[in-house]
Parts: sequence; structure tokens; C-alpha cells
Amino acid sequence: MTVTHPHGFTAAGVAAGLKSSGGKDLALVVNEGPTFDSATVFTANRCKANPVLWSQEVVKDGTVKAVVLNSGGANCYTGPDGFQTTHAVAEKVAEGLGIGAIDVVVCSTGLIGLANDRDDLLAGVEAATSALSADGGAHAAEAIMTTDSVSKNTVVEGAGWSIGGMAKGAGMLAPQLATMLVVLTTDAVVPAADLDAALRAATRVSFDRLDSDGCMSTNDTVTVMASGASGITPTPEDFTAALTQACTDLAMQLLKDAEGADHEIAITTVHAATEEEAVEVSRSVARSNLFKAAVFGNDPNWGRVLASIGTTQAQFDPADLDVAMNGVWVCRQSTPAEDPAGVDLTGREVSVTIDLKSGDARATVWTNDLTHAYVHENSAYSS
Amino acid sequence: MTVTHPHGFTAAGVAAGLKSSGGKDLALVVNEGPTFDSATVFTANRCKANPVLWSQEVVKDGTVKAVVLNSGGANCYTGPDGFQTTHAVAEKVAEGLGIGAIDVVVCSTGLIGLANDRDDLLAGVEAATSALSADGGAHAAEAIMTTDSVSKNTVVEGAGWSIGGMAKGAGMLAPQLATMLVVLTTDAVVPAADLDAALRAATRVSFDRLDSDGCMSTNDTVTVMASGASGITPTPEDFTAALTQACTDLAMQLLKDAEGADHEIAITTVHAATEEEAVEVSRSVARSNLFKAAVFGNDPNWGRVLASIGTTQAQFDPADLDVAMNGVWVCRQSTPAEDPAGVDLTGREVSVTIDLKSGDARATVWTNDLTHAYVHENSAYSS
Repeated sequence: MTVTHPHGFTAAGVAAGLKSSGGKDLALVVNEGPTFDSATVFTANRCKANPVLWSQEVVKDGTVKAVVLNSGGANCYTGPDGFQTTHAVAEKVAEGLGIGAIDVVVCSTGLIGLANDRDDLLAGVEAATSALSADGGAHAAEAIMTTDSVSKNTVVEGAGWSIGGMAKGAGMLAPQLATMLVVLTTDAVVPAADLDAALRAATRVSFDRLDSDGCMSTNDTVTVMASGASGITPTPEDFTAALTQACTDLAMQLLKDAEGADHEIAITTVHAATEEEAVEVSRSVARSNLFKAAVFGNDPNWGRVLASIGTTQAQFDPADLDVAMNGVWVCRQSTPAEDPAGVDLTGREVSVTIDLKSGDARATVWTNDLTHAYVHENSAYSS
Repeated sequence: MTVTHPHGFTAAGVAAGLKSSGGKDLALVVNEGPTFDSATVFTANRCKANPVLWSQEVVKDGTVKAVVLNSGGANCYTGPDGFQTTHAVAEKVAEGLGIGAIDVVVCSTGLIGLANDRDDLLAGVEAATSALSADGGAHAAEAIMTTDSVSKNTVVEGAGWSIGGMAKGAGMLAPQLATMLVVLTTDAVVPAADLDAALRAATRVSFDRLDSDGCMSTNDTVTVMASGASGITPTPEDFTAALTQACTDLAMQLLKDAEGADHEIAITTVHAATEEEAVEVSRSVARSNLFKAAVFGNDPNWGRVLASIGTTQAQFDPADLDVAMNGVWVCRQSTPAEDPAGVDLTGREVSVTIDLKSGDARATVWTNDLTHAYVHENSAYSS
């Protein structure tokens, strides 16, 4: 149940010698058609890696025929040769498939400032191209792993069509991380403009609401390709709903595999004046080191939740806030209410609910706790 | 060299039994006049503690005659009795000094949601009032300590007048913290409006640029009182410069005493289009967990600095950024430059310089690294 589940796709994952471990480190996903519509969203970070600079141009016409992904180096700020390496990789993929380089998206992950070995990369592309298969999705998903402990795959079935997907990163608190790479495939017939709208709607409420440590990568890329091989054109609503389900499933897998985390935390703000304000409030709590450290300590410290809410511009009355932790309303009307001793945080999943009493909008942002393992992983190794 | 160094002030610090350790936990600083001009700045957090709600009213007329400060509980969101406790404390101070309660600022620090014992507080106020002395500044500075390892005091001399100050918190990564309380005294003659302008200018470039863990307390209060006892009226420029020096000195003491921190980090952005943009860029780096963890690991990871800069809206060309760490320009024009192996981060003080090449403005934001001790302190204890 991988990116090669929908009809019209082949994939491969090989070891190109980029990872010091010798593990698979180069993946290739190819759309065999008959259609080649696509949509892609990139990191919002203004400092972008070379593969992002290249791929931004590739996706402008809505046509993508292949996605190649490598680990072992982000190829970001690697000097004048860096962009040329990305382009050489795209050309090599194109040569092997008989397509144009301009239809090849390139993704990379790893240290900023570290250049990939171009010869290893190109040899890896050749090997991947030779290994392409309609069963290759699982290998591709493994090849994009860095410190993920499991590969992340998803399939969502429609009426005679389906969506497949793979992901790595973001939500993982470990070296070579913060970069999130996602490839989604579908055999539905979906024009590029509709694909773009669906992808943006789906990422907005899934990946964009994952906020593990507040840091935004220079390399994040989410690409969806439509082969049209099913011959079926779903309604935009049906397709968007299915794509959203696929993205949310992958996002939750990333959250749960956050290396170094002891808890997954869902922060839901309800009765906000607008959805943006609900997100703003949830995100402020998701980014509070004091709150996240408290969760690590199994401490239902709702005071830190209020102190975060107070930094936002959302509409609310500071004297009339309700906060629940794992369903226990520890604070009502900004006053101690139910006994926090009744909140059991020893399980992995934690939920926080914040009632702003200012409207009908709601939103959830997910994060992990702040742990010793996070500090260790991000201080003991360069990444 | 404390808050009682300038003429016209008395102070005391006593143990009221609020701290479980039995240490001093209630401080009182009194302006004996002849003038009673004052200025105060409070936390920007919209969720404010009861002492802040009370004190905001007190300071509106520019007249403050006494500041009383307690630890053992922030008195924030403590239910309907909470505000009444704050008011009772103000009244008790007023009664002992023969002044109006409306001229008494109250500050508290400790857990949110925890109520102080009113009887202990009032008894403590009586004891402090009896202990007032022109040499009491050192005791007061000790009484506001919570997990500070040293008390923080400052004195800045003017021409025939002086400024004294004491501080606790913010910059300390420990339980019962994030709250910053500061009391400044001067025997200069300074009308309230000038005091207000001077204090805002001073805090803007000192305390407001301390960003230890990105969290904003519900209780922060900075108060300055002018006794006029020197009979001298400095120019606003001279007074503002001296007050800025005092605030900066206290801020640096807070930064250096950050419990749980291994490094003090100064992030200076230069050649920004505006000062606000320089602050925005410096602060984005100061709040990056990945950057701060890297410093903890003595790793000059400039890639994480760029990834933070890229999240801001400041004017710059992402392809033309220079970054130095401890004076070594590891990145020029967004490309690896001097060898990062030449950056020695084993000392406590770290400097990062970011050149945006977009103007003439500059600003520094200070922070600490993200350490295991921070996680421990903020997860193992409720605060």
C-alpha cells in the first residue's frame, strides 16, 4: 500500500553510497501516464535549497513526470556547483526515461552547506532507473528515510481510483531532520489546477498544522502526480477529501515517529472567531518550550497554556478561558476548576482543548513534547 | 550598591513563610520623597496576574510611593479571592507607611493558579515595614530571588544623582521562572512623563531583547521611582542613557545567571533596513530550538541560523547573507566561507553576527542555549 498502488506509476529505492550507513538513500517515482498533471507545495522558508530552486521552475507548467529524492545532503547553500549538481541529477533521470529534465522534480535532505557527491548521485540515478517497478513503492519509501524508525506510506481508495503516498521527516526530532518530503500519486484524472487547489487545501490542515519544534526547513517539498490511468474523473470535493485524508494519515505517522519524543500532543482551539485565530492560539501553545517540557514531565501545567494564549492577538476575554487536558477541564473562566490530579499524562497521546468563547471556528495543531532526547539528538550531532 | 544607594529610599527583605525553604520571600522598597514620580512597564501578555491588574491601576497617575514583591505564588488566575489578596497586601503596606493603597505597586512570582496564603503575606508585610532601612537594598534583592543563584543589583552614577536597581528572573531557565521583576530607584528629579519615556526607551533595548526561551510571563513588572532627593534635574538624554545602562547591566546579569544554561548567546543583526527588522531576524534565531541545541553541543551550525532568518519578513537577498560565529565568517554570500572548525564554542559567551546588506540598522537579542538542564528544570518540577 504505497505510491505504486495507484495505476500508472513505477518506483525504486537504491543505495547510492550517500549515507554513511550504506542504506538505501536515493528514491525515484515515475508517472507513466496517460496524463502528467501535478501540483507541488514548497517550504515557505525564504532561504531555499538548490533542489527547491530547481523544482520550483519544473512545476510551473503543472507537468511532472518523475520525482527523484536523495538523502546524505540537503544541497542547500553549497556554493556555485550546488545548483549544477541538482540539474545534473534531473538530466540523468530524464536521459534514462526519455523525458525532459524540465519535467523532473528533485528533492534532497541532509545538512545545509554539505554538497552531495555528484558521481555517487548520478550512479545512483542509473541504478534506480534500472530498478523501476510497479512494486517499487516500498523501496522508495525506505530510501527516503533518514532517522525515521519506520517508513511512512498511505493509500486512500476512491470509487475506481486511488491515492498513494510516502513521507519522511517533520515531526521527527532527530539529526538530518526538520525536512519533510512527501510524494503522492493518484490514478484519478485531475487537471493540474484542480490538483493544486486540492493539495493546498489538504496540506493546510495536515502538514501545515504539524509543529514539532517550530523550525521550518529549507527543503520541504510535497508533490502530487496524477496518471489518469483509471480513466475516472472524481469531483473536486471527493478528490480533495481523499487527498486530505491521505495527507493527514501521513502527518500523523510523522508525528508518531518523532524520534526523541515521549508524547504526541494535539492542541485544539474551539469557539474561535476565525479559523486563523484558532490556528494562531493552538500554534502558540505548540511552540511553548515551557508547556512542552511540562508534558514531558507528565505535569498538567495549564498555567503555561494560558501564558501562551496571552501572547496571541486572537479574540478572547483573558478572564474567561476554559482549558481541558485529556478531557479534564482544569480551568474554567480562567480559574482553577477540576482537579489536575485527575489528568493522566503517562500515555503517549495528550490532548489540550482551549475554549475561546468567541465564535464557531476551530483548529488543531499537533506537536511533541520537549525531551532530553531532543536536546541530545540536536546537539550531539551536526545536522 | 543597591536600590537604596540613591538618596530618599528605604527597603527591606524578610521571610514571610511563603517559600518552603524558609528563605527571604517578601521585599519592600519605599520612596521617601520629596517627589514620587514613577513609571512602570508590564508584561505584554494579555493573560495578566492579579498583582499586574492591580498595579496597572496604581501607576496610571504617575505616582508610586512603594513597591512590595513576594514569591511563593504568582497569584494569577487564582479565583475571586486572588485579586482581593493583592488589594489586602497593598492596604497593609499603606497602613504601615501612612500612605494610600493606590500608591502601592504589588508584584508576585510563582506558580500560576496557586494562591498565596493571605495571613502569611500580611504578617510578612508588617515585618518588612518594621525592618525598613536605608541599607535594606541588599536584603530586598535577596528576598525577590527564587532560583537565582545570586541577587542582581546595579548602580549607575550621574552628576550628583544616581540610579539603583534590582532584578530577578527572565533569563533564568528554572522553576518558578520566566517572571521578571525589576525595581529601579533614582534621586534625580524626573517628572513622570519623562520617566515613562526613559523607561520605555531603556527596556526596549535591554529586557525586551532578552529572549531565553521565547516564553512571556503573566507577571513581568519593571518599576522606576524618582525621589528627587538630590535636587538635580538631569537632561532627559542624560537620564535615559543612565537608565539604559542600568537596565542593560541588570539584563546581562539575568542572562548570565540563567540556571541550566551553558552559554550566553548574543545575536546581532547588522545592515538591516530598519531596527525592527534587525530585531525580528535576531529574535528568530534566538527562538530556534535547533540553533540553541547546536550551541549546547558546541556545534557552529550556521545552516540552522539561515533556516531561521528565512522565516522572517525582513529585507534581504536569500542568496547574499553573511554569518559569523565568534568572529569567524563561516558563511559569505550564502555560501560556505571560513572553516567552521575555527569556531571555538567551548567558552560561555557566543556571538552570532548576521549581515543582511539591506540598510544601516542593527540590533542585538540575547538568549541562552537549549540544554538538558533546561528540560529537567521545566519538566521535573511544577512551576
